[in-house]
Amino acid sequence: MPAFQRIAITGKPNDTAVIDTIRKLIERLEAHGLEVSLDTAMGAAADPDDGRNTDKLETLAGRIDLLIVVGGDGTLLHAAKIVAPHTVPVLGVNRGRLGFLVDVSPDRFDEIARVVDGDMQVEERLMLEARVLEGDRVIARSTALNEVVLQRWNTARMIEFETWIDGEPCNRHRSDGLIVSTPTGSTAYALSGGGPIMHPGINAVALVPISPHTLSNRPLVISADSRIEVRVQADSIDQVHVSCDSQSDLPLSADGRLEILVSPHRLRLVHPPGHRYFDILRAKLHWGDGAPPC
Amino acid sequence: MPAFQRIAITGKPNDTAVIDTIRKLIERLEAHGLEVSLDTAMGAAADPDDGRNTDKLETLAGRIDLLIVVGGDGTLLHAAKIVAPHTVPVLGVNRGRLGFLVDVSPDRFDEIARVVDGDMQVEERLMLEARVLEGDRVIARSTALNEVVLQRWNTARMIEFETWIDGEPCNRHRSDGLIVSTPTGSTAYALSGGGPIMHPGINAVALVPISPHTLSNRPLVISADSRIEVRVQADSIDQVHVSCDSQSDLPLSADGRLEILVSPHRLRLVHPPGHRYFDILRAKLHWGDGAPPC
Amino acid sequence: MPAFQRIAITGKPNDTAVIDTIRKLIERLEAHGLEVSLDTAMGAAADPDDGRNTDKLETLAGRIDLLIVVGGDGTLLHAAKIVAPHTVPVLGVNRGRLGFLVDVSPDRFDEIARVVDGDMQVEERLMLEARVLEGDRVIARSTALNEVVLQRWNTARMIEFETWIDGEPCNRHRSDGLIVSTPTGSTAYALSGGGPIMHPGINAVALVPISPHTLSNRPLVISADSRIEVRVQADSIDQVHVSCDSQSDLPLSADGRLEILVSPHRLRLVHPPGHRYFDILRAKLHWGDGAPPC
Amino acid sequence: MPAFQRIAITGKPNDTAVIDTIRKLIERLEAHGLEVSLDTAMGAAADPDDGRNTDKLETLAGRIDLLIVVGGDGTLLHAAKIVAPHTVPVLGVNRGRLGFLVDVSPDRFDEIARVVDGDMQVEERLMLEARVLEGDRVIARSTALNEVVLQRWNTARMIEFETWIDGEPCNRHRSDGLIVSTPTGSTAYALSGGGPIMHPGINAVALVPISPHTLSNRPLVISADSRIEVRVQADSIDQVHVSCDSQSDLPLSADGRLEILVSPHRLRLVHPPGHRYFDILRAKLHWGDGAPPC
Repeated sequence: MPAFQRIAITGKPNDTAVIDTIRKLIERLEAHGLEVSLDTAMGAAADPDDGRNTDKLETLAGRIDLLIVVGGDGTLLHAAKIVAPHTVPVLGVNRGRLGFLVDVSPDRFDEIARVVDGDMQVEERLMLEARVLEGDRVIARSTALNEVVLQRWNTARMIEFETWIDGEPCNRHRSDGLIVSTPTGSTAYALSGGGPIMHPGINAVALVPISPHTLSNRPLVISADSRIEVRVQADSIDQVHVSCDSQSDLPLSADGRLEILVSPHRLRLVHPPGHRYFDILRAKLHWGDGAPPC
Repeated sequence: MPAFQRIAITGKPNDTAVIDTIRKLIERLEAHGLEVSLDTAMGAAADPDDGRNTDKLETLAGRIDLLIVVGGDGTLLHAAKIVAPHTVPVLGVNRGRLGFLVDVSPDRFDEIARVVDGDMQVEERLMLEARVLEGDRVIARSTALNEVVLQRWNTARMIEFETWIDGEPCNRHRSDGLIVSTPTGSTAYALSGGGPIMHPGINAVALVPISPHTLSNRPLVISADSRIEVRVQADSIDQVHVSCDSQSDLPLSADGRLEILVSPHRLRLVHPPGHRYFDILRAKLHWGDGAPPC
Repeated sequence: MPAFQRIAITGKPNDTAVIDTIRKLIERLEAHGLEVSLDTAMGAAADPDDGRNTDKLETLAGRIDLLIVVGGDGTLLHAAKIVAPHTVPVLGVNRGRLGFLVDVSPDRFDEIARVVDGDMQVEERLMLEARVLEGDRVIARSTALNEVVLQRWNTARMIEFETWIDGEPCNRHRSDGLIVSTPTGSTAYALSGGGPIMHPGINAVALVPISPHTLSNRPLVISADSRIEVRVQADSIDQVHVSCDSQSDLPLSADGRLEILVSPHRLRLVHPPGHRYFDILRAKLHWGDGAPPC
Repeated sequence: MPAFQRIAITGKPNDTAVIDTIRKLIERLEAHGLEVSLDTAMGAAADPDDGRNTDKLETLAGRIDLLIVVGGDGTLLHAAKIVAPHTVPVLGVNRGRLGFLVDVSPDRFDEIARVVDGDMQVEERLMLEARVLEGDRVIARSTALNEVVLQRWNTARMIEFETWIDGEPCNRHRSDGLIVSTPTGSTAYALSGGGPIMHPGINAVALVPISPHTLSNRPLVISADSRIEVRVQADSIDQVHVSCDSQSDLPLSADGRLEILVSPHRLRLVHPPGHRYFDILRAKLHWGDGAPPC
């Protein structure tokens, strides 16, 4: 008997390769005796005979055992935030090109079959919660699996702001902004900004300054249990923008403070057996021209 | 009654300012009713009336409650490795110039007095153990509070080696070497090599490649509980050198493997009350030209 | 007889220290027998007895021998672009804090006096011309002494564009943007972006990618005589912004191409005798904690 | 009639692929009516019927029109220093893997044939001369096409030294060393050290500090016509080593000074028609995953 009974599939919309992969997946999973639901956002095109249970991912999340995401890392980032509160495990299938998160090839249904049969690895990836407070009231919040970014907006000049960690002053910044990255995000935008690669197993986040004026203002790795507060001067609030995973924005008001904390929810990321983090890292970063160490 | 009864003092040898500070410390601590011992390595000059109990630090370590180190960060690095196995707390007093580890000014006896009275902060700093194995036998080992460095030696050419983490292949390196740094060491040599600053509170180590041939071979932060293995090809073993805290060397033989693990011992680093890590970081790295955030 | 007869003064507007310095300068220069004009942008406040010849800097530029700028590097950047086409030499006086360009202290009237007497160094700093072309027609142009910056605008996502050098394809970029920097600008924004320091004496410009997706996309130094073309895809033209010295903007249209060339005009920057570029660099970058090499 | 009559061939010794390529080259060039000489260092194996004129490259250099180097960039670096004083142009043929200098594939005899017929590009690459002086006397000198490196040697500690440019103090260094790189060398070791890429057409050299203690001690690009002097304190002369292109060493004595200047000789590097520098750069650095800009 499969380990997972109720499976939902979502993917990158309007992508022919994705739709093709999803149709094949549905056929095979159903032949495997599984009940498959579809994210309505994928549209009817993904459904081979139009007979599948479809619903919004937000609704499906409460009644499934496993989510399969077909697409790129960005597709999985989006879906992860929806299902993480329901502790639904997520398996990422790419479109033929390896991703950091979507690490299963669409040609390897054997790997997918082993996962649904319960032969798999599950790891928990920490997520961040960014929230804007006015006084003690949270007026906006959002979740990030990769990173929260504070950056200059609509201005060609540097911005100034302060960071406080657990109530203590950390730094006064003059820069283009700040990336607060999870280990998962450390191979994404934070890496372009000069941040370190962080193994997903560590309970830490990195504060990576973007083009800082002070050259010694280097990436800083702190405990994920820290409370990070960013204070922007009221008169420059219009030159500043906050986003989570480059997907959702947070409105920062003159009276508001930005707080970044570890989220109470973690993403349960599923891999086929034999998955090794460093193999993916080597392949994606072309370490040793992709050649495995001997 | 003071929290610490038996105190030993050590310091940077042959340094007039250090000896002067030690003599003053002895007078005041004894006036405070404390028993003070001296590291013989400091010589008779440090002892104001030649009547102090002196012994080698290795011997003193077993029978003291607190070690005061006077000098620079390097002096404390050296002493830490000797007393850490005895869980003796260590207080660092500088020679007038703030260090990352020696954070008390010699002019602030009030702060030192509060510490010996038990009004203090104690933090534990993880240390690394580097060991050379032949087969299953450990043929050499050494401890590092800052970093273990593998580097090319007696050659103007890059060296090649592999890193393995917890038994899995990580990377094949072509570079000038590798710095394996603790959070404490992250503001020392590893920072010059492009590594991130790591807060002492995180349980992590950084692998910082030195001048790597592959530009994507970036600093990597992993759990301090990982077992790091470095494999150097037998025929290039003479072009490679391993050192701990730039102080002690490890002999690497053609048949040997280098393993780096967290040490079972931690340094108990003592600070006066009110100590804040980021204040030191800002001052040492000239963040905001040293100006505190408002 | 002074080397310069007709001197104009400009400065950072609405800055008490600047106005105070300008008033003193006027008194002393007139006592020195010189004719002093004032930039009207400075307002009447700068004029000690309201009797000075005032005019817009654009107008003054054609009939003066020397321009003195009082303020920060940004003030001089602004003035330089106005007077460079008239080959008017420029002397920078700071407000008490050394700049890269405003390198004379307001307390050193002796140095200023030597300059106006002709005892000085003059160096030529190359400038860039950025222009937007539609077909063969230049529809907008602007000048930069520091840098031309193309950057993402109103988007949290990376932008894509291509660079072509002298008609040959150079690179396809996925990043936050590109800094094209002169040697003068190499110690400004380009340095924050990871670019090299370039001595003002070299005839080169640097292309510094901002947070590039590809880690091997490193700063590139090419001849200042190169023609740089940046091609942005028409459908992402609204996510891109071009500015010169963070001061003036260029409108980039869907049909337009951005070209960056060396300007036909150079800034003639004047220093007191004994000026040495590396002394300024050491002081500004806190090399050796500001201590001069022995 | 070929543009070049007298051609010599050299290559990486003891490399089967190189010897195979050389044998084919000889056959084809002789069938083309050319006189081919061989570097004796290649050994008899390279000569298909043992009838070729062979001599040391140093001797051949004076009586040939073109040198063909078969191997990697390192092979060409070595040969370049020998033939550059004779202004002999050099063509680099790789062993199947593109190099920055050996940019012709062994499978493209058509390109080689066009070059020997005079259809080619020639560019001049500047070289450095490093020399050790005692008083005014040059006691040792060597030439570098890529870089001169001063580095710590036989020590695990940083070294201290000063740089002077054209007789003026530049910086006091605490680091692992300094790379003085030509534009040609800017894609080699200097790039690993964080230096910029420099187009071969600029008349500049880069000073790239190796793991500098001061974070603002960044790569510095100056005119190739500058005279660089490095001063090492006499008591640390044994911890310092100087090498050129990682191939030849210079003895630095306690009384000696190291000077680095542009060499009076330049390498005349030959390419087939259609060669474009940025195409090579893109391919070697995997820019855009090697995809050419559209």
